Parts: sequence; C-alpha cells; structure tokens
Amino acid sequence: MSNLQLTNSLTRKKEIFKPIDPKKISLYACGPTVYDSPHVGNARSLVVFDVLYRVLKVLYGSNVTYVRNITDVDDKIIEASKKKEIGIDEITNKVTKIFQENCKSLNCLKPSVEPKATDHIKGMVEMTSSLISKGFAYEIKGHVYFDVSAFKDYGRLSNKNLDELKAGTRIEISDLKKNPMDFVLWKPSNNDDPGWESPWGRGRPGWHLECSVMSEKYLGKNFDIHGGGLDLIFPHHENEIAQSCCNNNTKNFANYWVHNGFVTINREKMSKSLGNIITISDAVKKYSGQVVRLALLSAHYSQPLDWNDNLLNNQESTLDKWYAQYSDQNKKVSKIDKILLDDLNTPGYIAKIHELYNAASKGDEEKKIQFNQACKLIGLFDLSRAEWESSKKKKINISESYIMNKLEERTKAKKNGDFTLADKIREELFSKGIMIEDQKGKTIWKVK
Amino acid sequence: MSNLQLTNSLTRKKEIFKPIDPKKISLYACGPTVYDSPHVGNARSLVVFDVLYRVLKVLYGSNVTYVRNITDVDDKIIEASKKKEIGIDEITNKVTKIFQENCKSLNCLKPSVEPKATDHIKGMVEMTSSLISKGFAYEIKGHVYFDVSAFKDYGRLSNKNLDELKAGTRIEISDLKKNPMDFVLWKPSNNDDPGWESPWGRGRPGWHLECSVMSEKYLGKNFDIHGGGLDLIFPHHENEIAQSCCNNNTKNFANYWVHNGFVTINREKMSKSLGNIITISDAVKKYSGQVVRLALLSAHYSQPLDWNDNLLNNQESTLDKWYAQYSDQNKKVSKIDKILLDDLNTPGYIAKIHELYNAASKGDEEKKIQFNQACKLIGLFDLSRAEWESSKKKKINISESYIMNKLEERTKAKKNGDFTLADKIREELFSKGIMIEDQKGKTIWKVK
Repeated sequence: MSNLQLTNSLTRKKEIFKPIDPKKISLYACGPTVYDSPHVGNARSLVVFDVLYRVLKVLYGSNVTYVRNITDVDDKIIEASKKKEIGIDEITNKVTKIFQENCKSLNCLKPSVEPKATDHIKGMVEMTSSLISKGFAYEIKGHVYFDVSAFKDYGRLSNKNLDELKAGTRIEISDLKKNPMDFVLWKPSNNDDPGWESPWGRGRPGWHLECSVMSEKYLGKNFDIHGGGLDLIFPHHENEIAQSCCNNNTKNFANYWVHNGFVTINREKMSKSLGNIITISDAVKKYSGQVVRLALLSAHYSQPLDWNDNLLNNQESTLDKWYAQYSDQNKKVSKIDKILLDDLNTPGYIAKIHELYNAASKGDEEKKIQFNQACKLIGLFDLSRAEWESSKKKKINISESYIMNKLEERTKAKKNGDFTLADKIREELFSKGIMIEDQKGKTIWKVK
Repeated sequence: MSNLQLTNSLTRKKEIFKPIDPKKISLYACGPTVYDSPHVGNARSLVVFDVLYRVLKVLYGSNVTYVRNITDVDDKIIEASKKKEIGIDEITNKVTKIFQENCKSLNCLKPSVEPKATDHIKGMVEMTSSLISKGFAYEIKGHVYFDVSAFKDYGRLSNKNLDELKAGTRIEISDLKKNPMDFVLWKPSNNDDPGWESPWGRGRPGWHLECSVMSEKYLGKNFDIHGGGLDLIFPHHENEIAQSCCNNNTKNFANYWVHNGFVTINREKMSKSLGNIITISDAVKKYSGQVVRLALLSAHYSQPLDWNDNLLNNQESTLDKWYAQYSDQNKKVSKIDKILLDDLNTPGYIAKIHELYNAASKGDEEKKIQFNQACKLIGLFDLSRAEWESSKKKKINISESYIMNKLEERTKAKKNGDFTLADKIREELFSKGIMIEDQKGKTIWKVK
C-alpha cells in the first residue's frame, strides 16, 4: 500500500507519515469546550480527524489510540453559567450530551479515550509544580504563569518570533506577568467559581495545560499526530508545545501537526455578532448527518469551506443517488485508494466514489463492492436505505433557536392568559414539522 | 457524452447546461479594469472561465464565442492617473499589456473577442437614450441614472429585495438620485477627465453599462453563460440584468450565471491596507504559470481558496512528477471525463489525473495518452519538458515591487553620487537572481 502523506504545520510541507512505532499509532485532537452547542466549524474538525482515524485504523490495524479531550473547566463556561443562571455542572453535562449526540449524527467513531479536564486536575497541578521547579514558570499572588522567554523554540509552530506573535494577537493584559506573552498555567478561583486546592491556593488550570497533561498520560511524551482547527495554532498549540517540551526536556511533542481550515457561512465569517452561527444540531435537523458529513469532506481539509444551501443540496442529491447502490453485505475495507492517502484528499476521493458509483449502477458487482467500501471508509452509509429515505422526510427547515423563541413566546402568552395565541403558535410549529408537548411545567418539542 | 452541469447563481442550484442553440454557444466573463496589475484573485476568474471555455469547445466544437471585456474607462483609472501623474492612456495601455502577458503565463486561451469599453461608447450612449425613452432612466444635470424602482426583478440574482440590498452595501450618495439604489448610466466629465459628447453633455459611461452593450453586440440579447467573481454579483451583475432586460423587454439576459469564490492569502482577506496583495506577475515569477494555474484549479470554483506557500509548493511537486510523463504526440481531446462535467469539479479531475499518471508511469501507454490529454484539457503541459525544467531554474523568491523599490533606491544613490551603494544594490539583486542593465537613462531588469 502507498504511504500516507499529511501536511505538517510544523514544517509547512506535505510529508510522508512515519509513525514512531507502527504497532502503536497515537492521535490527539482538540475537543470541545462545553459551554455552548457546537457549530459546523467544530463539526469540520470532528469529521476530518474521524476520517484520519479511520484511515490510520485500516493502515495500522487496531493499534491506533485516538484521544479527544473535553474541556469542562474554562472561563467561558463560568461566564455562561453566570449569564444563564444555570449551574456549571448542568451546563457542561448538557453541552457534553449535545456534543456526543452531534458526533453520533455525524457518524464519527468514538475516540479510544475521551478524557475530561476536571478528571485530570491532579496531573495539571503536578505539571505546574514541575514547570516552576525547572524554572519555566513562576508564581505570583496565586497565579502561575509560563515564562515564554525561557523556551527558545516558542513560535516554531506559528513560524513567528515573539515580537511578531505579540503584534498579531490580543493578549490578556496583567500587571503580574513578566512578559505580556506569558500565559496562565494556574489561576485563583473566586468563592463561587469552580476551584481545586493547590500549592498556590484554591484555583483552576489555564486552558492549554490539560492537553499537555492528557496527551502525555494517554499517548506519551512524544506521539505521532496532533490535530485541531487552524484557529488553535496560536496560542493554544504553541503553548502546549512549550509546556510539554520544557517539562519533558524533549525536542519534539507531536511529530505531525494537522490543522483543518475555517468554515464560512454564505461567504461570511461565522460570528455571534453577525448572528450566523449554525449549530451542528440545527444542521443535522435540516439536512441529516450524512449530508452534513459529506459537505464537510467536499473541500480539502487544509482549505477554507463555505457553507451554503447550494453546497448542502448538492450533497443531498449525491447521497440520494448513491444510496440506490447501497449494500449492507460488504467485506471490511483493507486497501485505501492512493488519492485519499495523498494528504486526505477527500474531494478527489469523492470524485473517485462517483466513478465507482457509475460503474456499479451499470451492473459491475465488483465495483459496487468497492463503491460501498469507499463510502463506508469515509463514514458514509451508516444508515440503511430505508433509514436514509426516512431521514429525508424528517427534514425540517427551521432552526433550533427559532423553535426556542416560539416556545418562549408561547409560554409568555399562556402566562398572560392568551390561549388563542398559545394555540396559534403550537399550530404554526406543527405546520413546520415540530410537535410540542407540555410536561410538568416544561415544554418539550420533537420533529414529527 | 454526459451533460455539463453548472451551479447557476440565478437559481442557486446545480443545473444541466442546456444551450439556447447547440450550434452557437455564448460565454461572457467580466475582464479587468486596467488601472493596476491584476492579482491572484483576478487570476482565479481567468483560469476558471478558461477551463469552462475549453470544456465548451470540446463539447460543442468551434461554435463557442467567448467574450471578455477590458474596462479602460473608470473612476479608478482616473484616480490612478492623477495619483501617479501618468496619462490615462499610458496607464491603460501598460496595465492591458501586463494583463495580457499574465493571461499568457497562465496559459489562458485568447477569448474570441476582447472588446474595450472605449471602443463602444456609441453603443452605450444609444442604450442610455433608449432606457430614458422607455422610462427606465432619468437625466438630471448631465447625469443619467437607472431607476431601480422601475424594474420589478431588481435583486433577483442576489436573492434580496431593495431594502436588504440597501442595508448590505455602500451606496454612492447623491442628492440627484430619486432612490439611493439608482445607479449611474452616464455622468459628466471634468475638462481633464476622459469624456465623450452625448445628448447630456460631455461625459463618460457608468461601469455597468459596457457589459450590457458589449454582450449584446457580440452574443445577442439572450445568451448562455455569464461568469465573474463572486464580488461582482452585487451591484455589477444585478445592474447588467436590469439594464439589458429593461432595454430589451426580455425576461432573461444570461441563462446561467457562474461565479467563482474568493482567494485569501494565508487565511487573510487580500487588501491594500493589509499589504498582502499578490499580483499575477509576482506569482508567476515565484512559481511559474503552470504551478499557479494548477493551484487555482485545486479547489472547486464555487468554494473559497487559500493561497499559501504550502499549496503552491505542493502543486510544483505534482507538476514536477507529471512532467516526467509529458508527451507531445497527442491526439486532440474528444471526450471529457464525467467528473469534470459535474460542475467543473477540478479537484476531483486532478485526482483522476493523478490516477492516470500512476498507470502511465507503470508503462500503460493508453493511459499515458489519456493522462496527457487530461492535463492539456485543463491548460497544463503548455511547456515542453525542457521548458518546464528551465522554468523551475528561473524561479526567484522576491516580488516585483521589491525589485522596483531597490531600483529606485539605486537611481537615487546614483543621483547622489553614492556609487558604492548603487553597486551594492546591484549585487544584492544579482544574488537574488535578478540582473539589471542601465539603458539610455532607464534601468531594466530580468531574471538571470
């Protein structure tokens, strides 16, 4: 079989993937911060690294460990908790559940390990202590900062020096830092905030620390591939490298860094202020997870991807055609086409699947098997043909936030005794495919 | 042969291309405003519609008329002329020449007609008069405006109504307009500005008018395909439709509107303020036109494309490999793979070429012919193998503006009698692959 090649952000080149130990492949990808429903930008990362995981499993058998963390302690979560007046645990549990359902809808395989940050606080305290004792970090008034000037390779992944990094980024300003680029390893928690005892008082870890601690725990000090979205290169991944290489006195942390490109929505940046964020839950309600998955793979992972109805409708037509050649009697994939091994060229591989489909639909049984295998390799055809058909019928064209707003309006109407309006809203939602039910003072909704 | 499908911006759907008359195919694409060197964003449009033109020629024989205009009268040109203190003609001639050299470097076929706006002023005056007489335009103080409220389909291409369009755009404010969205058909020229006599005094046409006039002249009132960059949908293409449909009393102008996506540079928008504009001249100096062309085709035309060294280096390696199977003894392409006909899926087609290359390099002579034909179809392999090799050697890693700045510095140094500095600059450029020569008071440069 051909060699897998990947674009390594460390060298900014496409390289042949050479594992540290072919019998023990290690892959780490940054998972979600569970403070709000994940969006289609997050979905791209999930699907891209899921395909990489599937490819590695075919190439190297069952000896692939895929770690994807869950960040369940973070300032964004604390903020969301205060704003929504909901407990931290309630938020993180709810969003984690949504995230896991999203992964399932997108037909992403479960990672080998899915560690939570809050289960690894001890390790983070230990790494912080160790970095202080080795002279790479300093404590001041309950805060511990990593001293970037102590790590000469800082900026290697971003290919920038300290001054360039400083110019290009928003830095958290603090009088306590020696250097404005120093970053938090540990910080004190207010009484109400989640916190853990530490040598520096009650506090909580900085965001970057967990990935260094958990990747080492599950994959070792030096592992094969680290993945994530492009937006994480700086500062997150740069800081992971700093923490781990300094603490372990190693030159390399992950050997290959793979980053997926951004998702824009109708050619605009996705942002709260533009109000154009599309959650995975909304996307898979409108188009089914299979369609969303194929759309996310339609561009090369290193390139930007624009999300628009035309793109999604095209994927739906494609899958509709392809499901006509669906077969559930297939051998496992044992050989991967060169095209996909060439830097996970999914648009090229999808073109190849179109070719196989054409041959299959002319009655070529051998090609039909190859066609089904190819679809399965990239995580398609997890539905039976009947399930696919019914998934299309379930399609609704309204967003979750629209439904939530309507439900709120209805609750208000009922409170004001305006039951005519309340009923009108119920009917309106029903006509759009949404059934609602009042249960113990709460209103739940589902797709008809 | 399969049908060609294209994503039609008018319907926001992928549609089977049905020509008005299969014996007379018509394609119009917006060309450059010749006020400054074209950049890689412009190059994408050039290459995408060149591939479409090549595909149409194979499908429909020689009966394809491809019109691409040159805008040589425009406020941007007048501004540039004033700023640089160079005559209008000097600027437009110089930039037109650069543009045509760029097209050649990118191996774009010459369009059937390449009309200049200034050669069609008479037609523009006539269309303006006609629009006034039909009640779609009004004259005020030497200005003629198109009255958007008179065209009920205004906004059809952008899929927005007047209010939405108003909210989303920068409108040229004028007390003379009835409606802020009304746009210029004709405006008065100051004495120094280029101008032509008209029923409304000496003046010049608005930008949108020329495309309506020239497409009608060369392709007819209703033609097959109109192409351009996404940024032209509004207002330019919307206004072309308004002018032509109102003047001709027709429902349709172009039947298919095809738009190519944006190019970002290292994930940032290309802009003067960021100083990250890459001209085609610079790009083809650094990487050769073949490499630039392949890079521009590496993403689907409807998707965004990020320009970065990794992308370009990968294309260069690919071409280096492919040129090893180059053959100049090929029949003409007579059959186009389904993949490319499916909405000009160039990333999929490039994957197919990789497959053909693999078979060819194992000695399959039939596949080698197909491989060479496929490369030629998308405008590769215009160099011989020897020319390819020497094009790589010519590669320099500095930009044209860098060279120009150095030459200016050197001229100054010589003026000041500092010949040591002048020589130092000459040597510096030489070490970077640039030879300079002083000729009759001017300095010319070339790649070693």
